[in-house]
Amino acid sequence: MPADSADSLDVTPPAVRVALLGCGVVGTEVARGILTNPIDLEARVGARLELVGVAVRNLDAERDPAIPRDLLTTDAEALVDRADVVVEVMGGIEPARSLLLRAFAGGACVVTANKALLAENGPELFEAADDAGVDLLFEAAVAGAIPIVRPIRESLAGDHVRRVLGIVNGTTNFVLDKMATEGLDLDDAVKEAQALGYAEADPTADIDGFDAAAKAAILASLAFHTRVSIADVAREGIRAVTAADVAWAQRTGHVIKLLAVAEVQGPVDDGSISVRVHPALVPAEHPLAAVRGAFNAVFVEADGAGPLMFYGQGAGGRPTASAVLGDVVSAARRRLTGGKGLRESKDQNFPVLPADAAITRYQLRLDVADRPGVLAQVAGALADHGVSIDTVRQASSHAETSGDGDQGGMAHLVITTHTAREASLAATVASVAGLEPVRQITSVLRLEGV
Amino acid sequence: MPADSADSLDVTPPAVRVALLGCGVVGTEVARGILTNPIDLEARVGARLELVGVAVRNLDAERDPAIPRDLLTTDAEALVDRADVVVEVMGGIEPARSLLLRAFAGGACVVTANKALLAENGPELFEAADDAGVDLLFEAAVAGAIPIVRPIRESLAGDHVRRVLGIVNGTTNFVLDKMATEGLDLDDAVKEAQALGYAEADPTADIDGFDAAAKAAILASLAFHTRVSIADVAREGIRAVTAADVAWAQRTGHVIKLLAVAEVQGPVDDGSISVRVHPALVPAEHPLAAVRGAFNAVFVEADGAGPLMFYGQGAGGRPTASAVLGDVVSAARRRLTGGKGLRESKDQNFPVLPADAAITRYQLRLDVADRPGVLAQVAGALADHGVSIDTVRQASSHAETSGDGDQGGMAHLVITTHTAREASLAATVASVAGLEPVRQITSVLRLEGV
Repeated sequence: MPADSADSLDVTPPAVRVALLGCGVVGTEVARGILTNPIDLEARVGARLELVGVAVRNLDAERDPAIPRDLLTTDAEALVDRADVVVEVMGGIEPARSLLLRAFAGGACVVTANKALLAENGPELFEAADDAGVDLLFEAAVAGAIPIVRPIRESLAGDHVRRVLGIVNGTTNFVLDKMATEGLDLDDAVKEAQALGYAEADPTADIDGFDAAAKAAILASLAFHTRVSIADVAREGIRAVTAADVAWAQRTGHVIKLLAVAEVQGPVDDGSISVRVHPALVPAEHPLAAVRGAFNAVFVEADGAGPLMFYGQGAGGRPTASAVLGDVVSAARRRLTGGKGLRESKDQNFPVLPADAAITRYQLRLDVADRPGVLAQVAGALADHGVSIDTVRQASSHAETSGDGDQGGMAHLVITTHTAREASLAATVASVAGLEPVRQITSVLRLEGV
Repeated sequence: MPADSADSLDVTPPAVRVALLGCGVVGTEVARGILTNPIDLEARVGARLELVGVAVRNLDAERDPAIPRDLLTTDAEALVDRADVVVEVMGGIEPARSLLLRAFAGGACVVTANKALLAENGPELFEAADDAGVDLLFEAAVAGAIPIVRPIRESLAGDHVRRVLGIVNGTTNFVLDKMATEGLDLDDAVKEAQALGYAEADPTADIDGFDAAAKAAILASLAFHTRVSIADVAREGIRAVTAADVAWAQRTGHVIKLLAVAEVQGPVDDGSISVRVHPALVPAEHPLAAVRGAFNAVFVEADGAGPLMFYGQGAGGRPTASAVLGDVVSAARRRLTGGKGLRESKDQNFPVLPADAAITRYQLRLDVADRPGVLAQVAGALADHGVSIDTVRQASSHAETSGDGDQGGMAHLVITTHTAREASLAATVASVAGLEPVRQITSVLRLEGV
């Protein structure tokens, strides 16, 4: 196919040259997509997509037979220099970062699925793309196959997003769902997730919320047209969630989900934003509560649009490759139709609140001495910190109701607060824990989606 | 500062001129959005949006005070000629169609919320936009505020959509939800929808599925890169759905939803498509089953991405205006960054199957004489037509179990079939109805999402 045939009457548009950096699970599916569906992709783009090379670390590793060996190279830099569209699915910070900057400098568009890189170096990369007037597309970096980047970046561009609540880590959602549906404790549920391939041998990145925190930073940046990095995200994983927490959640009409939360606090025009990841009680009738197994979903509240939810598979080779290929088509189309890249708006430098300034609600469970006046004393401690109570539920502390073991002469209290600053809530919990009749704070969980 | 100001140090980009055609509920919110959030929109676009006029039929009608009277005009053609982006929210076929063609001829982009026009004249309009190299954007035309057009058109451009199941009419979803949760019959539920403003005084367009059929045509065109008009859509509304149907659906673990269905039948590459609107039983655990009240949701199954769902408000002034404004920002950005419009791909002229060739499943309920051998006789009639049975449930015909009235010596059968051609299923029902022991076919409903 001729590269430059503009001056001929019978113009075949030049092929768009695609370089693939990385050939793991996702990269293999991206390569297969380009190599095995050329006619469809050509129809979508308006020109042929030519896979000009695949950068790998090891030329001799076993590969999918659909990928011709002569496309493989270890010279990623030279490959980048030959491409119109660079697809980065290698992961990690370096050499991915340098290769992307090299791509922009050479005028190539970039499609990446690398959430860690974006959460760490997003501002630098977006600026480089803006300066070069090319696209940096990253639909696959958040919530896998679910189209969420494009809807927030484009469809809601004329609206004000107020809050994003995301189930963006399939592993933890699978684990919490198993705990809820089968009564497993955390360790057993994690083992089952590992056995089924939903969790890594070392599940830290998922269970402790690091993966979700990277996605929270990207979602917050998109939703609020600002720059949030993973360092700004308050993070708490699901390690402390017990079978009793899950059982009590059901008893009070909730499910426990690990949520990535990004919300404006105060008026939209001059508010600050809170960005955090933590387990939360979600009302059973909330659309997020119905997200089962390893599925992901992102719930968005905007002033004009109202509530929206986006649901689908958040991981896996084929789903992630679907999102990557959608971005490749977009980048290639623009290459062909001309025009500069999608300008990233970053005008509202909303300050990100420190973790203890976030406004939230708590549900506390505590064991107290079963005698008159105790509830009044606990309620008094909350009032002293300006925290008002929404509901109180009292249960005698038999093992089958508290789930936390049976000790004579005790009662179990479940207290839900109204909204207050995180710092006030934390101080309140400390103060309640110090009361004489309080034996134990069994659980402290935030409530979201109320 | 926009990216394309390279040749001057201090260039203020020209304002993008927006013409608004129509000033009803949606138009008013669009005008308010442009007039009251100019700074935000300018940040998103990279240039000021200037509302150059609002075409109305009656200059003297009462208007929102936020809209300056001197913007109003009855000369829509002259207004179109002065615009870079034409926003059409007037509805109806003419003069909307002619004004859009005029806009394209003059090189303006068009944003429309007019589903009737797209379902009727989509091919002509897309071709005119392609010829002019400008955008025709219509996010608001399907499922209101829910970003569904952009995800299908762009995010899934590198994937193959296999099926779309949409709850795309809020009125009928509200009605069916009321029937399910409060046991109302259809007429009472429609009256309640009317009282709450969810249904028109004449609810025909909603109840009989015309509105959903227009959206089904647009969704099918998008999902399968082909041209489907409303005339191709097999349509059945919810008028025949009874309180007993709804109660039986719950008893068999389903909910009844009015679905817009567009699916490939056969291999994706050379299949035909079925596009239809009808009430259907959906399993209670399917994500669509949790869509309550007047909300909309579109469930998409793609080869790579797997299942996806998009949920939100499908109607209303502010939600619809949010979708329109997102498109206005996209159109204005492209105006500024240069380049041609989004090429509409329409390469796969999948034939649309006639209604009776669709492949689906039925759930039949029937009253039969309560004596031995009847089930065998009914099962034989199904087998004769090559329709195989998935499940049979038999209940004695007391009023509280069948819900259809109590007649001595009768049994109530609930039969779920495997998939078969619509024509075979219809012939089967006719044949079963003619069997001597069959007193009445109480209900025939399709099953989806299984």
